[in-house]
Amino acid sequence: MNIGIKSIASYIPSGRINNIAQAAYFDRDEAFVHAKIGTATLSVKGANEETSDLAAQAVQNLLDKTPELRLEDIDALVVVTQNGDGEGLPHTSAIVQHKIGLRSDVACFDVSLGCSGFVYGLYVIKGFMETMGYRNGLLITADPYSKIMNRQDRVTTLLFGDAATATWIGEDPVWAMGPARFGTDGGGAEHLVVKDGHFHMNGRQVFNFASHKIVPHMESVLAEAGLSLDSVDAYCLHQGSGVIVDALAKKLGENGERVIKDLFGIGNTVSSTIPLLMERYAFNSDWKNLVMSGFGVGLSWGSAVLTRQRP
Amino acid sequence: MNIGIKSIASYIPSGRINNIAQAAYFDRDEAFVHAKIGTATLSVKGANEETSDLAAQAVQNLLDKTPELRLEDIDALVVVTQNGDGEGLPHTSAIVQHKIGLRSDVACFDVSLGCSGFVYGLYVIKGFMETMGYRNGLLITADPYSKIMNRQDRVTTLLFGDAATATWIGEDPVWAMGPARFGTDGGGAEHLVVKDGHFHMNGRQVFNFASHKIVPHMESVLAEAGLSLDSVDAYCLHQGSGVIVDALAKKLGENGERVIKDLFGIGNTVSSTIPLLMERYAFNSDWKNLVMSGFGVGLSWGSAVLTRQRP
Repeated sequence: MNIGIKSIASYIPSGRINNIAQAAYFDRDEAFVHAKIGTATLSVKGANEETSDLAAQAVQNLLDKTPELRLEDIDALVVVTQNGDGEGLPHTSAIVQHKIGLRSDVACFDVSLGCSGFVYGLYVIKGFMETMGYRNGLLITADPYSKIMNRQDRVTTLLFGDAATATWIGEDPVWAMGPARFGTDGGGAEHLVVKDGHFHMNGRQVFNFASHKIVPHMESVLAEAGLSLDSVDAYCLHQGSGVIVDALAKKLGENGERVIKDLFGIGNTVSSTIPLLMERYAFNSDWKNLVMSGFGVGLSWGSAVLTRQRP
Repeated sequence: MNIGIKSIASYIPSGRINNIAQAAYFDRDEAFVHAKIGTATLSVKGANEETSDLAAQAVQNLLDKTPELRLEDIDALVVVTQNGDGEGLPHTSAIVQHKIGLRSDVACFDVSLGCSGFVYGLYVIKGFMETMGYRNGLLITADPYSKIMNRQDRVTTLLFGDAATATWIGEDPVWAMGPARFGTDGGGAEHLVVKDGHFHMNGRQVFNFASHKIVPHMESVLAEAGLSLDSVDAYCLHQGSGVIVDALAKKLGENGERVIKDLFGIGNTVSSTIPLLMERYAFNSDWKNLVMSGFGVGLSWGSAVLTRQRP
């Protein structure tokens, strides 16, 4: 089976936080927001919108744009989240199964990962579908950090936005999945952590980790694909912040021109940033290949090479 | 690749709750405990033992009993839990990676599932390893319900114990994984749920679900393996309680004699019950095959046929 990505859609809740005003509260000016954060607004879900609602709306948007996708054909549903519905038990994927009306013989589970979650999730669902003989799967990212944000914390409150994405995984894909590599360093677990209901981040440690780790990691997975940094049509990197994307682009030298930088006016949406980039940039492009890399909570990172199979 | 189960070990924390005394508090006698619950004691972790500690100790016990397993050969670590370390961010598998000293190029993620988690987890890690070309993986179950137990709730406090298991997944297995089937009904999500820090269960609904769903589900997966209920050497069912195991055995008629019933004096250990049964009963048996079925939180269920490859 050649299982890959057939279509991607997203849902961005309509609430917005003014990041310029937030920054002013911390004595940071507009130039700081544009240069360091990368977005003047952040998306935020409604108080009554649950993680499963974001996920269900992303699936609805996927159905709307992909008429050939039928819910009754779905065999597996995987939700990547660390901020699921309620208190996390039951798993959010079961609630989504019911909300969108999937068959009851669908396999559903959540994968707990942060910013590396989409890259991991692609290969988790691909492998699961292949071993089970499934033909159609949905990979959802939905990790609304507004649930765990302390609006008094200058390190984190300017960065994160809420969004969900839904990716149709199946045969005859537009984007085939090539080599991938993953990594984990629990020694850095404390640098991104929820305590007493609020998310805490050691920004310097996370920046150092990402800026040292990610380019060599992409290089190694590209080598496995018989490619080099020079031969990549696009770099779809996790949009942690404007400054980290800029730092990685700089490390790539001239190749950095092919780094996509776009926080979409909504901020760092955790595991949704890479599928958002793909949705908006990859499908309508002339790219023959792309490399993606997600990194963050864990610490955890994953890089993969995707190649175009058809227009 | 023929990836399957090579070895299983477990860790049961030393703390014990006297279930007879607990039951007396609710005006239930010893006969009720033996007949309905199925265990006179429950295991409970120490106050300072985290989920990752249970997991790490299970891995240590796996290393002790399996000299040919080397941690440096491990490529993937999956932790099945809905009660991970701290507040669930970061994922527990990253913390375990650090505690047991795995390489940093190991792929780690948590799967959020309850009592169906071991069956799902087997096929999730198998598929992931096959698609990634990995040779050795660890599947861990560690879901300490003592974290979410309300000791004033007569419906739940008599049932659950703490435990963790570690399963070595790789080539040349003792137990090969045959057909599997999975299911999800989020319409029943409310029957097993955490609210305000405590676990709530509608025992009647869960009993009805399991007693109607599981035997036909096993029959369907056995048919896919070319087997019938008559030709199964052993039934390794989730040990939800004495009464549900008895009810399923009764539904199986004469075949019910081959249902393994053992709560090990520790109670319902969620996703750990089936690997505990396998560890204690399957490896030293003359069984040529077994069927397993896990069911619970979600609602979610999974059944699989395993066949012996070697002694």
